[in-house]
Amino acid sequence: MKINVIKSVMEASDAVAAENRKRLDAAGVVSINVMSAPGSGKTTLLAKTIPALGAEMSCAVLVGDLQTTRDAERLGGLGAAVTQINTGKGCHLSPTEVARGLDSLQLDELAFLFIENVGNMVCPAAFDLGEHRRAVLLSTPEGDDKVAKYPTLFQSADVILLAKVDLIEVLDYDGQRIRDDLARINTRAPLIEFSAVSGVGFDQWMDWLRDQRPTK
Amino acid sequence: MKINVIKSVMEASDAVAAENRKRLDAAGVVSINVMSAPGSGKTTLLAKTIPALGAEMSCAVLVGDLQTTRDAERLGGLGAAVTQINTGKGCHLSPTEVARGLDSLQLDELAFLFIENVGNMVCPAAFDLGEHRRAVLLSTPEGDDKVAKYPTLFQSADVILLAKVDLIEVLDYDGQRIRDDLARINTRAPLIEFSAVSGVGFDQWMDWLRDQRPTK
Repeated sequence: MKINVIKSVMEASDAVAAENRKRLDAAGVVSINVMSAPGSGKTTLLAKTIPALGAEMSCAVLVGDLQTTRDAERLGGLGAAVTQINTGKGCHLSPTEVARGLDSLQLDELAFLFIENVGNMVCPAAFDLGEHRRAVLLSTPEGDDKVAKYPTLFQSADVILLAKVDLIEVLDYDGQRIRDDLARINTRAPLIEFSAVSGVGFDQWMDWLRDQRPTK
Repeated sequence: MKINVIKSVMEASDAVAAENRKRLDAAGVVSINVMSAPGSGKTTLLAKTIPALGAEMSCAVLVGDLQTTRDAERLGGLGAAVTQINTGKGCHLSPTEVARGLDSLQLDELAFLFIENVGNMVCPAAFDLGEHRRAVLLSTPEGDDKVAKYPTLFQSADVILLAKVDLIEVLDYDGQRIRDDLARINTRAPLIEFSAVSGVGFDQWMDWLRDQRPTK
């Protein structure tokens, strides 16, 4: 009985996600669900990505947070439409929230939609929002054991950014451990070593992003 | 109808938590629910705390993780009984899991029980496990905006450790922002600036811990 209820909720959720994807496909928008623990650097990555895309392709951002509009404020004024979704006590974005977010945007004008999920390595991974790709960040100060401890998130990633690599020199950190753990669960997603401070890896991220656009 | 179902689940959960607390009280054990984002340093804090308490008071640890026994392995051999609870896809410990954990321990021999929750700033805050106190860690590389963005977790904290303060010098970090945000939601819990690398704040944490023991 319990399982049936959960199942029907997930089925309803997946149906809304499929509807979102259909809308995005019709408008020719590629959507990226950006996920990580709190403070891994999702907003910082997007704050660099928006201006870099700006010259060639327009984008928008749906930003999920329990409370505050701080992330939307950080991303505002960079040239992208930004919609903040406050989830209250919700630990992940839901496809219904994303559907409302899509209502707030001019989809036909966009090349990319970034969906910045709530900072959480567990719950967001379980919900399809209607995205086309999943970008997962893991920042070095979180430790080199996180791929093994939160495998569900990393299993479904299409690209993984090892963020804040500039901090490795002051950390007790074994990058090989990350690679070994990823080799067991996800060999499909490229691993990009990234630092918003030094700029390393940003070109590789932008190349990956451009490659996600459908070829004409 | 939906709300009633959720309510009854939470009521059942709270009843199990109350039962856990009764068992701990009967055995004279003070239990601390340790919560934070992934990689803030919960296990590292406990790995320093166990030997420091060892000489005077015995303790045990229940460690919650989705998968792996890495944290239990890190904490094993330090002089405390350690039980790993694997939650599978569960994003927080439940009082039922803690009850099973209590079954695995000799409660009468303990002064403290640490319950290391799943790394997550959202869901664990919603569940009473039967603990007496809540210790919340926030590491500096997660950023100075996290108190405002995850207020529920910080509201219920009895002590807050600002961890990895040794990294502040290489970060763009405004400690005053944390203090200002805390002043709005929780003035009860002491804020301890802590570094496992430099050792700063550890004595203050140990003093706080000892103060939680009932006076005879």
